[in-house]
Amino acid sequence: MDKLFEVFDTDLDAIEIGAAILGTGGGGNPYIGKLRCRLQLQQGRRIKVIPIDELRDDALVVSLGGIGAPVVGVEKIEQGEECLRAVHALEDDLGCKVDALISSEIGGANSMEPMLTAAQAGIPVVDGDGMGRAFPEMQMCTWSIYGHRSTPSAMADEKGNIVIIKNTRNEVWVETLARANVVAMGAAAGIAMAPMKGSYVKKVAIRSTITQALSLGNSVLKAQRDNTDPIAAVLAHEDGRLLMTGKIIDLERHLKGGFAVGHIFIQGFGDFSGDKGQIDIQNEFLVFHRNNQVEICVPDLIVVLDVDTGLPITTEVLRYGQRIAVLALPCDDLLRTPEALKVVGPAAFGYPEVTFTPMPSSKNKEGKR
Amino acid sequence: MDKLFEVFDTDLDAIEIGAAILGTGGGGNPYIGKLRCRLQLQQGRRIKVIPIDELRDDALVVSLGGIGAPVVGVEKIEQGEECLRAVHALEDDLGCKVDALISSEIGGANSMEPMLTAAQAGIPVVDGDGMGRAFPEMQMCTWSIYGHRSTPSAMADEKGNIVIIKNTRNEVWVETLARANVVAMGAAAGIAMAPMKGSYVKKVAIRSTITQALSLGNSVLKAQRDNTDPIAAVLAHEDGRLLMTGKIIDLERHLKGGFAVGHIFIQGFGDFSGDKGQIDIQNEFLVFHRNNQVEICVPDLIVVLDVDTGLPITTEVLRYGQRIAVLALPCDDLLRTPEALKVVGPAAFGYPEVTFTPMPSSKNKEGKR
Repeated sequence: MDKLFEVFDTDLDAIEIGAAILGTGGGGNPYIGKLRCRLQLQQGRRIKVIPIDELRDDALVVSLGGIGAPVVGVEKIEQGEECLRAVHALEDDLGCKVDALISSEIGGANSMEPMLTAAQAGIPVVDGDGMGRAFPEMQMCTWSIYGHRSTPSAMADEKGNIVIIKNTRNEVWVETLARANVVAMGAAAGIAMAPMKGSYVKKVAIRSTITQALSLGNSVLKAQRDNTDPIAAVLAHEDGRLLMTGKIIDLERHLKGGFAVGHIFIQGFGDFSGDKGQIDIQNEFLVFHRNNQVEICVPDLIVVLDVDTGLPITTEVLRYGQRIAVLALPCDDLLRTPEALKVVGPAAFGYPEVTFTPMPSSKNKEGKR
Repeated sequence: MDKLFEVFDTDLDAIEIGAAILGTGGGGNPYIGKLRCRLQLQQGRRIKVIPIDELRDDALVVSLGGIGAPVVGVEKIEQGEECLRAVHALEDDLGCKVDALISSEIGGANSMEPMLTAAQAGIPVVDGDGMGRAFPEMQMCTWSIYGHRSTPSAMADEKGNIVIIKNTRNEVWVETLARANVVAMGAAAGIAMAPMKGSYVKKVAIRSTITQALSLGNSVLKAQRDNTDPIAAVLAHEDGRLLMTGKIIDLERHLKGGFAVGHIFIQGFGDFSGDKGQIDIQNEFLVFHRNNQVEICVPDLIVVLDVDTGLPITTEVLRYGQRIAVLALPCDDLLRTPEALKVVGPAAFGYPEVTFTPMPSSKNKEGKR
């Protein structure tokens, strides 16, 4: 257990920035979660992080996150123990204690919830997650993609309601039923799901993503302090590629079936003068087109940053006239297999005609394994 | 256990009619459930009914029923073991076996489901229910009205999905969450809920309602055979009052929030020539007005029968020109207390200005106790 490390108050700003970048426009805003983590630390609780390889093979690990509409998550502040009650409800259902929590998605708000809940529960949070980014639906977690059932899943809201999704026909039904419940609960709830053995987590989790978010966020903060280019810092940190710098010249965005759906249109400037860019959105940024040709698509990460500050711009705060940098960052190899592409490739998002071509990456993430 | 009696194939037609009358226009059509009961009996299973007073005080009794949109229940035939799977899921959650089932509502389709499921499970069904009629929502069961929690509740659909509503803020939340889940499941599911001790069932259940439905239906069938007045037979059997005979001259009916809502307008004939009647509907018949004055309202039963056959007409098959008899039947005393009227009185259905005046009844149901 001496291999555990802690997240301190001074790390939270960096994790917030890194997680928001990995959210690729979605995943919810980690800001409020950050404040709540800070409060926990001020109250004397500790956020202990366990590297994946330190997990016992028979440890019971549970995937944790908030579920709901990101915009509601900002406007309706959580009561604060939704996720903790979800963990306890799952423990009751399983008849045993959970050893560690793992984030369902590092991108966005669900970077903070597992740290927060682990601090409340007095157990460690795993340095890893199920997406390495953000995706809009739960069956898009690696544990689900690689064959694990997410049931039983326990949901809890701020009112004291608790629902257990005990068994489902398939993984998509977990998402469908959880979504129906969270809408009834008021569009925000905590969900603890997919109880797993440590040995399985070692196989399928995206590794070291808390560390990654922290270090990525710190690289942006350092560039800001040093007055160097934060975009370049992100690209260097993630082995990414600058797709375009430009101005948002048009924006279509609406809510459809609980998702933020739309397109942004970009007029390139600088090195990209004359280029026209388009990004398609379903909560996250899905597909980047240059001059009407698809160039980058899910599961690789499309990231929109403010061109001056390097801070991420999420889909809900996009607006006409913003000056942005569009980056492509390589996703983890675990999202590039045929099994994964069935669930998180372009066809799964309504682009059957688009073939995912992995963006080149000198390291991909092997270095992390 | 020698006080148990059986329901036989030859009883099912009568129970169907009696239950549909007690459904007061709603509760779903018992026809398909009857066919499925018949099939169980033909396959050698037996429907054993236990009188309430024969229950052991410590027996574990579970409230059972189908939940969903009645119109879907007719068009999408059940797989057949939804309710049985719900019972088994609740047993798993409770960690013990259920001793007997009881219908959540005798009125309509949920007269048949508990008999069917009890036959499948090899346990008895209690001669009683939670409403003595039909109501649109689950918190309107007597066990809920008199302070019992309906959680844990287990829901199962035809696809194999199982959801446990483990804890809720109050009884209305059970309804809200169950409704959200059943909509996601495809508008039809089985639900086993409100695990109760036999001693509690003895206090709060509406008694002998399987026997009542059987005997009521038989009185209609006998009148039809004997060519006597079936309307008079129903009135005599239930100590009811004939409110009006007349013709439906207008009909407004639409679906709102999953409920059939509307009004029917009646031009009286015979002894009621010159009278104008109106019935307000929310799945069931809620309020009867004569010449714009409220005369009868929930929880007393408003029943619409075909004036010639005495067969009940449910809200979904109402149509212009039908010649009907409108009857008022006294509800059980358990629905007339201040606690009950808060939940099933006119104010609970959006009529705060209407005061419930119990219709006179020479026996009410004391004779049954």
